[in-house]
Amino acid sequence: MDYTPVLNLVADDFQAVDATMKRQLTSRVALVSEVGHYIVQSGGKRLRPLVTLLAARACGPVTDDRHVVMAAIIEMLHTATLLHDDVVDASDRRRGRATVNAAWGNPTAVLVGDYLVSKAFQMIASLRSQDVFDIMSDGTCVIAEGEVLQLVNQHDPDTSEARYLEVIEGKTAKMFEAAAECAAALAGGTHRVALARYARCLGTAFQIVDDMMDYTSDTHTMGKNTGDDLAEGKPTLPLIRALAVASEPDAQILRAAIQSGGRDQLPGVLAIIERTQALSYCAQRAREASDEAIAALRTLPPSPYREGLAQLAQLALGRTA
Amino acid sequence: MDYTPVLNLVADDFQAVDATMKRQLTSRVALVSEVGHYIVQSGGKRLRPLVTLLAARACGPVTDDRHVVMAAIIEMLHTATLLHDDVVDASDRRRGRATVNAAWGNPTAVLVGDYLVSKAFQMIASLRSQDVFDIMSDGTCVIAEGEVLQLVNQHDPDTSEARYLEVIEGKTAKMFEAAAECAAALAGGTHRVALARYARCLGTAFQIVDDMMDYTSDTHTMGKNTGDDLAEGKPTLPLIRALAVASEPDAQILRAAIQSGGRDQLPGVLAIIERTQALSYCAQRAREASDEAIAALRTLPPSPYREGLAQLAQLALGRTA
Repeated sequence: MDYTPVLNLVADDFQAVDATMKRQLTSRVALVSEVGHYIVQSGGKRLRPLVTLLAARACGPVTDDRHVVMAAIIEMLHTATLLHDDVVDASDRRRGRATVNAAWGNPTAVLVGDYLVSKAFQMIASLRSQDVFDIMSDGTCVIAEGEVLQLVNQHDPDTSEARYLEVIEGKTAKMFEAAAECAAALAGGTHRVALARYARCLGTAFQIVDDMMDYTSDTHTMGKNTGDDLAEGKPTLPLIRALAVASEPDAQILRAAIQSGGRDQLPGVLAIIERTQALSYCAQRAREASDEAIAALRTLPPSPYREGLAQLAQLALGRTA
Repeated sequence: MDYTPVLNLVADDFQAVDATMKRQLTSRVALVSEVGHYIVQSGGKRLRPLVTLLAARACGPVTDDRHVVMAAIIEMLHTATLLHDDVVDASDRRRGRATVNAAWGNPTAVLVGDYLVSKAFQMIASLRSQDVFDIMSDGTCVIAEGEVLQLVNQHDPDTSEARYLEVIEGKTAKMFEAAAECAAALAGGTHRVALARYARCLGTAFQIVDDMMDYTSDTHTMGKNTGDDLAEGKPTLPLIRALAVASEPDAQILRAAIQSGGRDQLPGVLAIIERTQALSYCAQRAREASDEAIAALRTLPPSPYREGLAQLAQLALGRTA
């Protein structure tokens, strides 16, 4: 998905976010700086800090740079999660480059991830906002629980759609929610509930689409490989939906594939996903979440930034739209 | 070291700390609760929360239970560090039991460690003290840097005593310092500087003695195995001192042992440590730190708790005294 036009609304802010991250990731311990700058340079979608910046400006005129610091905090905490996720999943590629665990080893990835979390909380402390501290510390607890729940669900073919939604509301939607809610809190709090709801729904839509892309064949350009989730035995919505409506022989194939993991069953699984129209179902669920996100914006004053947030919710649907 | 008499000064507080930790480690995600309770039950020395409790009461009468929450926060953050340390070092035993990574695997140890950190910051947020937030977020950054620096020093025979001290001031002394300084901050701040200095020195003494115990033969009862640090190629003070004063042939043996790690060289290394009287040097450095800790207490009002803190600094020297 190309969201350059939306990004251009806050291009200057974005440069400031990058500069803030580079400064914060410079440490007297050279290895920390080295890995930190590797991460910043690797880029990534930067969708969460974009939500923070747009949400801040959608609340009205911005009078200081706390929204920039907030956006950097969000991206650093997200990056810490990715570092640890890649250790947990033993992943060796992300965003087209070697993961930190692949390039420097698990110990470095674990400990630099911990450093990013500490640094992010130090930056939160610098904002002097109890509201932001509450949102972020509650949020990171939910995110950590979501990560553990995802681990528990792995290789479990009985994972329900409700349990799947609980995982993505934890590991993904909560960080989006915090990204927007903190921006609103720093802007005085008027639009906290609306922006929190917007971003939670956006995060849900985004993750459902991300999980769909694991079962569509031409998505390697997005940095994900077809069948990665299946290989790790992760029961995401395409599989859960297919399982719910498949014939008994097909269901047995899906259950075995989730339990064993690996890529051997991928062609058969893709055929079943096709037969059960599971991706249409996922697209519908993603669209509902996206619609709910856009609806949540109606109490905000009209502005290019509010429009930008609405566009993001459209763009999150990507090629499923 | 038996510090039961000191512990008895705050026995009721300690029960409250354990109850707080059990409550905070109960999660809607069963695996989090399961691992959390395993950790609490495994006990451990609980030296850091003891410092918090004694420091709080040494500042004067305690009027609420924030010192109990603070002590639980310190122990939870320390435990998170241990979970990740055991992943980094691939350790399978701690405190006479299987480590979390050995019992549940690395992914669980990494993610539950992350949960503990989030939960600890959530509890910090509940204290509504910007001073505590500043101390803890600055402190965890220094600790994380110390952990990375330890990783960098691993297998490096050129690690200087200064670089060793930088590691233990980060990974160990800083948590002790935060444990005491936060207690003082919650008590109004009068004794912050004195208690911070006391605990930083206590932590340094404690870690030097801990590193000595790795090269004394009868320490398996303390939960550490002789030669663990050598096996991991960690250049701690006994090796650094021995290297500084050893003959050239002995120095070559030490350098090779640090570079290769493993236990094959342990008998030869122990003989060199004996010949160079490196442990006497370490004991002297630990005693200096302990003396400095006790001296820092002199500005506090006399009380059984101040005496308890002084006794801890004596006891930290253990059998080296």
